[in-house]
Amino acid sequence: MPAIPSSLLHLKPLFFSLPRFSSPSLALNRARKFPIPTINPRSLSSLSSAAAAAAAAQSTGDNGSGGGRSGALASPPITEELQKIDVNPPKGTRDFPPEEMRLRTWLFHNFREVSRLFGFEEVDFPVLESEALYIRKAGEEIRDQLYCFEDRGNRRVALRPELTPSLARLVIQKGKSVSLPLKWFAVGQCWRYERMTRGRRREHYQWNMDIIGVPEVMAEAELISSIVTFFKRVGITASDVGFKVSSRKVLQEVLRCYSVPESLFSKVCIIIDKIGKIPVDEIKKDLKSAGVSEEAVEELLQVLSIKSLTKLEEILGGAGEAVADLKQLFSLAEKFGYAEWIEFDASIVRGLAYYTGIVFEGFDREGKLRAICGGGRYDRLLSTFGGDDLPACGFGFGDAVIVELLKDRGLLPELSLQIENIVCALDVDLQGAAARVASILREKSQTVDLVLESKPLKWVFKRAARINAHRLILVGNSEWQRGMVVVKILSSGEQYEVKLDELV
Amino acid sequence: MPAIPSSLLHLKPLFFSLPRFSSPSLALNRARKFPIPTINPRSLSSLSSAAAAAAAAQSTGDNGSGGGRSGALASPPITEELQKIDVNPPKGTRDFPPEEMRLRTWLFHNFREVSRLFGFEEVDFPVLESEALYIRKAGEEIRDQLYCFEDRGNRRVALRPELTPSLARLVIQKGKSVSLPLKWFAVGQCWRYERMTRGRRREHYQWNMDIIGVPEVMAEAELISSIVTFFKRVGITASDVGFKVSSRKVLQEVLRCYSVPESLFSKVCIIIDKIGKIPVDEIKKDLKSAGVSEEAVEELLQVLSIKSLTKLEEILGGAGEAVADLKQLFSLAEKFGYAEWIEFDASIVRGLAYYTGIVFEGFDREGKLRAICGGGRYDRLLSTFGGDDLPACGFGFGDAVIVELLKDRGLLPELSLQIENIVCALDVDLQGAAARVASILREKSQTVDLVLESKPLKWVFKRAARINAHRLILVGNSEWQRGMVVVKILSSGEQYEVKLDELV
Repeated sequence: MPAIPSSLLHLKPLFFSLPRFSSPSLALNRARKFPIPTINPRSLSSLSSAAAAAAAAQSTGDNGSGGGRSGALASPPITEELQKIDVNPPKGTRDFPPEEMRLRTWLFHNFREVSRLFGFEEVDFPVLESEALYIRKAGEEIRDQLYCFEDRGNRRVALRPELTPSLARLVIQKGKSVSLPLKWFAVGQCWRYERMTRGRRREHYQWNMDIIGVPEVMAEAELISSIVTFFKRVGITASDVGFKVSSRKVLQEVLRCYSVPESLFSKVCIIIDKIGKIPVDEIKKDLKSAGVSEEAVEELLQVLSIKSLTKLEEILGGAGEAVADLKQLFSLAEKFGYAEWIEFDASIVRGLAYYTGIVFEGFDREGKLRAICGGGRYDRLLSTFGGDDLPACGFGFGDAVIVELLKDRGLLPELSLQIENIVCALDVDLQGAAARVASILREKSQTVDLVLESKPLKWVFKRAARINAHRLILVGNSEWQRGMVVVKILSSGEQYEVKLDELV
Repeated sequence: MPAIPSSLLHLKPLFFSLPRFSSPSLALNRARKFPIPTINPRSLSSLSSAAAAAAAAQSTGDNGSGGGRSGALASPPITEELQKIDVNPPKGTRDFPPEEMRLRTWLFHNFREVSRLFGFEEVDFPVLESEALYIRKAGEEIRDQLYCFEDRGNRRVALRPELTPSLARLVIQKGKSVSLPLKWFAVGQCWRYERMTRGRRREHYQWNMDIIGVPEVMAEAELISSIVTFFKRVGITASDVGFKVSSRKVLQEVLRCYSVPESLFSKVCIIIDKIGKIPVDEIKKDLKSAGVSEEAVEELLQVLSIKSLTKLEEILGGAGEAVADLKQLFSLAEKFGYAEWIEFDASIVRGLAYYTGIVFEGFDREGKLRAICGGGRYDRLLSTFGGDDLPACGFGFGDAVIVELLKDRGLLPELSLQIENIVCALDVDLQGAAARVASILREKSQTVDLVLESKPLKWVFKRAARINAHRLILVGNSEWQRGMVVVKILSSGEQYEVKLDELV
């Protein structure tokens, strides 16, 4: 191939746009604090474009510079127009910088560990689903707040507002290839679109556990047991939190008595779920316009105020499934060992259309927070998607309220960064040696923060403190020649030399 | 409160829609295989709507039924219209049923463990970002395939195609509150929208590691070391995989020599990245229409064919940063211990506009797969967002090609479900006792699959085998009365009785 023309060594001035700094003084501060050889805003900001080009030409053409990274100008600027972007994540969403991520990792780890104790298998689904999966007509909040849009192929899609419909879809898809019961859990991000007036976020993570194929109340009892196990693991007791339990069959039996068509059932449940959130008069109005008679509305509201299973049995009789299911659940709660956590409350119906039996929600006993978690039985969901129904129940447990509760109770864990070793070369020529030391330690499963630049020891000690390093390993010239490094235990100040191949 | 009218106990027939089964014969098969008391498609499918309503009334009204779950009709059907949904996830996306999820968990665990060995902290960002974050004009594939749309508030948003822009945004946002260098990693889902002609997916997960604040080549050397560490962990050797390394400064020095304006730099890189993917004649045409002279194009293509650093130094001279950086990287690779993994290849430029220095990609030596991972230095990205530039480098490592490679090499791990105990009551009245046993074991951190239904022992053994249980714990009447359970070690068949409080 032809040699590069000699003009390579005698570069002509050429046009290029100056790198821009939105605030030269800020850039200077940064440069003072962390000297960064390749980027020197001071020299840049004082140069005209032509002078900068000339300087670039000189710097690149200078044979004596020895390949040092002597000037920013040798780096090609990205040739886009400068655009001031919003440095915040989109409205209602979160970044997870390291400190937030440690908390999230801790929380998810507890979700996963509890699920595994209960023999559940983890699954996941796309965060983007077909909108059709969420089109239900019962007037749920979750439906109104669907984060939906049309994709570039003109398909109606939505960011999932919950995980259960995807799970149902996957169960239908798997068909007879899976052995029942399925015990599945998931930890996934869910989205909703609302006007952001209440300071609520548009995304949250949700832990779900679901049991598919078990019609018995043992399944609901097992699910509540797993949530109790989670609470205990993170230090929350039965005096902090309780579960309110009811069954949609209570409502169903009352509605049936007043000849309210079953086709109205989901809609009525959704309206009733708003009790306590909107005025009772509005609830009554909504129920009436849904087609429930005035007499039935009054009766309904009376029944919903019942807080005792004995009382409920007096009213409904002992023959129906509502009372039988609930009695069995309370009996099982004794055996599982969480009786003190649960109480009957007929007003609990939950805000999702598809529940058919027992429903429950976790609440803080001080009454300051929204529901911590909630779930129930949904034996009829699969057929609404055109599949064969299977008995099913599950719960959702968000990542927001639990963190508020833990904070309020002083139970948030201290989760600091902790890296076992910090390895540092005492001379720039020994950086390769330091890399060798880091590699040896990492091969022995030790975590290592390798100092990648030439830094004063004061800086290294400061960083060691910030990362909570246990040991500082210094690679110095005289020790290295003897195949040794200096190890300093940072908690005690103890310091000694170790042979490289004896480093553990 | 007024008592519930007596009509509750003498229910009138009422209208409700029959639960529908898309395929009665399938439903019957399912019912035979897994008897589910509450759902009996056989009886349902043979009933007329009126008869079903009457049956429901009778079943609920029958005082003698003892609350048994004797009929599906007592459950309220969800009152939506039946809609046959597509049971597959949206085009180009994946579900993660348990077996797929185990592989994903294993892979992510390795990503995370390697990142921790290197002292990196995990971060995350919203999967939905403002579209502005990705608007670059260099003609990248990633830009053309942006999964973007308008949200309900008329904002232009996009599902993130990559993680680096979000990271840059967060770094600018954090400003001087963070100590440099930052060593951050993330494992997140990324999206692209393409026509799906090539059978490529629209989402994948990507492992990123980034170092912010280090101008020295030590940073790139450390990043490649971490990827090598990952490969070694999962059984991949230097004879399976290598890294091709170059620097964008090579191109820059050639372009400068031909007075190509620096404003064209990113665009030229993107065109050159297509070498090997589209015909060379098209590359030449694109370069010319971008404004590069014919002479320069020929020279460029010649330089790009160089595979030896010595040869490159002969052509470019030893003074420029391109050669110096690369020589330093190869020297550090020796010290880190991965010299046999990397080779110089001038044709590597990578397909992202923002790289400014060293670029690298991991490839399989058999040449069957797309790039396994890729990365490089991007010292100028922050200023394109209106922030102060900081030296930075990082890589992205997808979850797709690595799995193909592992499969091809027979290195995919066997990841079967494994639950330590399966606990089963021998009598329906002992289900509470079995729950007690399960709770005791779980408190001792033992994983337990509790049999939630009354099932024959044959079924229980089959399930025990499926979940790879180590022990079967049977709760039988005579043992329970003595405070004992039967433990059967499934591998040996050994069987013995244990006192409840001695169960470990």
